[in-house]
Amino acid sequence: MQPGFLGYTGSYTDLYELTMSEVYFLSGRGVEQVVFDYFFRKIPFGGGYVVFAGLESLIGILEQFRFTDEDLAYLKQEGFHPQFLEHLKDFRFTGSLYSVKEGEIVFPIEPILQLEGNIIEAQLLETIILNHLNFQSLIATKASRIRRVAGDRKLIDFGLRRAHGPAGYFASRAAIVGGFDGTSNVTAGRDFNIPVSGTMAHSFIQYYPDELQAFREYARYNQETCVLLVDTYSTLDSGLPNAIIVGKELEKQGYRLQGIRLDSGDLAYLARESRRQLDAAGLEYVNIITSNQLDESVIKSLLEQKAPIDVFGVGTSLVTGQPDAALDGVYKLSMRADVPTIKISESTEKITIPHRKQLYRLLADDGRFSGTDAISIRDEKDIDWIFHPHDPYKSMSISETTREPLLFKRMEKGLRHSEARTLIEIKDYCAARLKQLPPEYKRFNNPHIYKVSITEALKSERDDLIQKFRR
Amino acid sequence: MQPGFLGYTGSYTDLYELTMSEVYFLSGRGVEQVVFDYFFRKIPFGGGYVVFAGLESLIGILEQFRFTDEDLAYLKQEGFHPQFLEHLKDFRFTGSLYSVKEGEIVFPIEPILQLEGNIIEAQLLETIILNHLNFQSLIATKASRIRRVAGDRKLIDFGLRRAHGPAGYFASRAAIVGGFDGTSNVTAGRDFNIPVSGTMAHSFIQYYPDELQAFREYARYNQETCVLLVDTYSTLDSGLPNAIIVGKELEKQGYRLQGIRLDSGDLAYLARESRRQLDAAGLEYVNIITSNQLDESVIKSLLEQKAPIDVFGVGTSLVTGQPDAALDGVYKLSMRADVPTIKISESTEKITIPHRKQLYRLLADDGRFSGTDAISIRDEKDIDWIFHPHDPYKSMSISETTREPLLFKRMEKGLRHSEARTLIEIKDYCAARLKQLPPEYKRFNNPHIYKVSITEALKSERDDLIQKFRR
Repeated sequence: MQPGFLGYTGSYTDLYELTMSEVYFLSGRGVEQVVFDYFFRKIPFGGGYVVFAGLESLIGILEQFRFTDEDLAYLKQEGFHPQFLEHLKDFRFTGSLYSVKEGEIVFPIEPILQLEGNIIEAQLLETIILNHLNFQSLIATKASRIRRVAGDRKLIDFGLRRAHGPAGYFASRAAIVGGFDGTSNVTAGRDFNIPVSGTMAHSFIQYYPDELQAFREYARYNQETCVLLVDTYSTLDSGLPNAIIVGKELEKQGYRLQGIRLDSGDLAYLARESRRQLDAAGLEYVNIITSNQLDESVIKSLLEQKAPIDVFGVGTSLVTGQPDAALDGVYKLSMRADVPTIKISESTEKITIPHRKQLYRLLADDGRFSGTDAISIRDEKDIDWIFHPHDPYKSMSISETTREPLLFKRMEKGLRHSEARTLIEIKDYCAARLKQLPPEYKRFNNPHIYKVSITEALKSERDDLIQKFRR
Repeated sequence: MQPGFLGYTGSYTDLYELTMSEVYFLSGRGVEQVVFDYFFRKIPFGGGYVVFAGLESLIGILEQFRFTDEDLAYLKQEGFHPQFLEHLKDFRFTGSLYSVKEGEIVFPIEPILQLEGNIIEAQLLETIILNHLNFQSLIATKASRIRRVAGDRKLIDFGLRRAHGPAGYFASRAAIVGGFDGTSNVTAGRDFNIPVSGTMAHSFIQYYPDELQAFREYARYNQETCVLLVDTYSTLDSGLPNAIIVGKELEKQGYRLQGIRLDSGDLAYLARESRRQLDAAGLEYVNIITSNQLDESVIKSLLEQKAPIDVFGVGTSLVTGQPDAALDGVYKLSMRADVPTIKISESTEKITIPHRKQLYRLLADDGRFSGTDAISIRDEKDIDWIFHPHDPYKSMSISETTREPLLFKRMEKGLRHSEARTLIEIKDYCAARLKQLPPEYKRFNNPHIYKVSITEALKSERDDLIQKFRR
């Protein structure tokens, strides 16, 4: 038994991707070029937008996706054909990847990412693409919701213990994309250059004969970074008075107590009372840090009551994306051997959009997002009329509107095509884009729906395909 | 940037575990022996029990938990003391682990697992223990709920694309513990010896000029394992008639079509109609497989309507544990240098239970679980009276009751103490234990609450500690 998850190799896929690929290979159909789109249908958390995350880490995974000897031995045992296994031995992704930037604000049915390659590679990589992007985009979107209600207060991810096993690693990364400031997760800090922070657990206090001694010992070895957890026995009767004693002792030594942490009880009441007592003791600079089952609704409520909280540690709800816990992203064939393709469905909204595509954001005169995006054929010129994707009676002219292309080539011949962006660049980009998004789409409850349209040429192509299938 | 998560090394922890450990180490307090308990407070999904999962994979992780050069370089950069880093260089777990068996049925506040070791190792391993067990127990519990409603129909995990990134690996494992039969996840199949299965995607059908040709090509290379996805264009007008054609062709070649898969529309109606047409064509043996946003409620409803479905593929809701998405397991200090310890709380139910402990399941005369578990001091003899953990007016004598100890030593000096159990053994154990659990605790909605008591001796120890703190 493996002690843990050891990385992304060829077996990181659903069996049917291999079964289908084997058929393509054995029947000599494995070289045809195809295009697949990644998109989602429903925005989680009742929000008005999704933060797209996971692209830069995905590119790293796709570049190195190979079948190991262990994978091949297993597939042999599962009955795959020797010639197909020989083919997989040399497998590497050789295609192209077009994508919106990581940290972009995106909406349902938009082609966020397009993969072009031969049918075998396009199929084998479906699972890892969905697995990676659905999760990080879910968490970045949740983090962004929390950031919106927290204003400029500090937000730290405390979720590793409740994350879904190794998922915690990428949850911490995605939380930064969506606007968090740091994490308690040391592996994520190490690999993604995220500021790490942490204080002490109740067990630390319990380990000492009394609380004051525990605080003093901690302060002695953490003079510059001392945060004291004050609720082990009684916040107001014991923890806070002891923290004030240690705070004054640190002052005498020329240091400053960084903060106290509240992890139980009524956080608004305790924060107010703590602030009052700290201020009365001349410790106005000491931060109040809170944790304990926080999510965007609780934080919103606490701040509506003007609780004087400086830092929120958010765990379970952030890293699991409660209550939705999943983004419903899918990966659908849109082109086959240069022929546009659609997936028909009995529900009109589920009919896919064919073709190699470009996605445009229409901008208002002040540079903000106008409330409408447009999907076109990739190299379409002279775009004028755009249409609602399903309602033929809704259309408008955009010939006069400034439009910004959102899809860029990010991989070519299986390799990264443009420089990797750092996590901080991605975070800053996301924050800047959210500033361009008008407030009605950022409302906490029942936000306005962002319009996503298709161009006249794309609509016409799709209508032809639908007609063809209906006949 | 790392292409993916590469395993459990020393940095797989929350920063505060390291900060606290550094204080213990520098102040010379790092060698004292402690005991920590793992337990949870709330059963997810409104259910009556939790399936404990993740133990065997956790033991593998704990045996190999080491700080790499990369970890140490990072911690040095984060300002940790050189002497502490020198200590971490040789870190390995040297303590003991007591645990209930993996697959055991467990209830709130029970000490499912106890770790004994020095304070530094006990603290550093907190995060990985919580991270690993909370997740697998969540998923095994969800899987068990689904198994309960599905009867003896086949259940396959299809969730990798919606799992939380690499979490899918352990989700597939935990699903088996809870009663699933197989997975689409090839890496999990490879490493955990889980049967893998899979059919085809809509893109496979779209890739061919027409559906019948796609079916025939697939059947040609999968004569013995052919399952056809019938809803790409129209289930009843196209997919099913084409599947019947291919089924009859396979018959002529001496093979049998294994099944058809329905992935959209009204599954009860389509399953009934498909069954009727398959049977009319003499294909009574062809299984009907369904997928598409299934969870225990939908499966229950479909089967209440007697939908003739043989296999359920369950994805998102299984692998994410929707809607709870987390088990609230915690890890609390219960003993320090041979002195029992408690964590006081203003809410009585949150006061912890001190001491090295044993957990007993009381059995009825017919061998079934009696509805009461008892927590004792580990080596306590002559147990007679047991008490409600918080209500002093509720007690009973158990001197005449058969009791089964549930906690066993599983690691000693940091190494596995008894042979690893296979996943199938664990799954069978879980199924057998569920048979012993009376139906009132397995009810789908509003199940009866299983009683967890403490012995008189343990109650007395705890009452003394509470008194001491209250004074």
